[in-house]
Amino acid sequence: MTGKLITFEGLDGSGKTTVMQQVVQDLIPRLGAQLVTTREPGGDQLAEQIRSFIFDHNNALDPRSTALLFAAARRQHLTRRILPALHNNQLILCDRYLDSSLAYQGGGQQLGIENILEMNQFATEGVLPTLTFYLKLPVAVALERIQTRETKQQNQLDQQQRDFYVRVQTAYDKIAANNPQRMVVIDATQPVAVVTQKVLAVISQQFASYFL
Amino acid sequence: MTGKLITFEGLDGSGKTTVMQQVVQDLIPRLGAQLVTTREPGGDQLAEQIRSFIFDHNNALDPRSTALLFAAARRQHLTRRILPALHNNQLILCDRYLDSSLAYQGGGQQLGIENILEMNQFATEGVLPTLTFYLKLPVAVALERIQTRETKQQNQLDQQQRDFYVRVQTAYDKIAANNPQRMVVIDATQPVAVVTQKVLAVISQQFASYFL
Repeated sequence: MTGKLITFEGLDGSGKTTVMQQVVQDLIPRLGAQLVTTREPGGDQLAEQIRSFIFDHNNALDPRSTALLFAAARRQHLTRRILPALHNNQLILCDRYLDSSLAYQGGGQQLGIENILEMNQFATEGVLPTLTFYLKLPVAVALERIQTRETKQQNQLDQQQRDFYVRVQTAYDKIAANNPQRMVVIDATQPVAVVTQKVLAVISQQFASYFL
Repeated sequence: MTGKLITFEGLDGSGKTTVMQQVVQDLIPRLGAQLVTTREPGGDQLAEQIRSFIFDHNNALDPRSTALLFAAARRQHLTRRILPALHNNQLILCDRYLDSSLAYQGGGQQLGIENILEMNQFATEGVLPTLTFYLKLPVAVALERIQTRETKQQNQLDQQQRDFYVRVQTAYDKIAANNPQRMVVIDATQPVAVVTQKVLAVISQQFASYFL
């Protein structure tokens, strides 16, 4: 497998999806068919169906059932989209991957980072990203952004949800500290254009051979 | 948890579902509300939906995705149906449980019994049956029965399917050998009435306190 898997991680509200779109806009003309963009959970028809099932029934599902369904979607996505692209020497940009499960289910849902990692080992058979961008911002700022997004429904985040996001953030910080060789932490309070440029700089430098 | 989980296992065609129905018919008048009957995968609305999803997309799902989906359905079923009944001191008869995954995905699909067991540890948190009836019959007989069932569609089982069932059988035999304290092997070539009586005899003896 000669391709490279690059993932984008962070709290909801970190701007990761927007940044990835900007990055892709810049890379498309330079990389053409060498570039693959996808997202988790999903990126494959059945994986997308599992994703919908999770979101439709989130409150009725046991947290461990949810974690297993995310792992099933991940496996499907991995075998149908990521592995073929890796074998094809492509550069894959993926919006969320394993670290999201570690942070959200392991940290947020308090199932334990190690437990989620071990269970996901069955799904990934050890396929990890070469590079992960962790877009970090203070939880308070993330919550403000999420709240602004959801103002239309007059949703106020309650204390329980706030505590959840603090646990997700803490888990992401721990994962970043334990995986410095693949995780690049970027201050996501900066403007999108600045974050985008930093991401592009790291990709251009680390995968220079793709740009020759 | 003071209740008891009793599971029925075996190859398709072993008569396990029919035998369980006969056993339940006998037990209902004697146990009343102490008795709970259920099946896997399913036995809970969301678990049943996951079951349908698996069967609808069986050929398009990666075998590891399938195993993770079965584990997700198992977790949901366990938390919504089995654990409440165990806490309620009930006797639960369940058509298939963990051993089916070990035999079918571990053995049949060649993912490895140990791998499936380890991954399912996340789903079950160690909840094992107190007693398991393994209805055993020669693969050739099972295949003949499956074939007879499916004659309407003129389906001939091909060699690949035959090899699959041999691997499932071998896995069941290995599980039974490794778990003699909970697994009772019954010769399923005997008439249903005979198998039913043997099952009832073991249940009446092992769980005598329920029949007082």
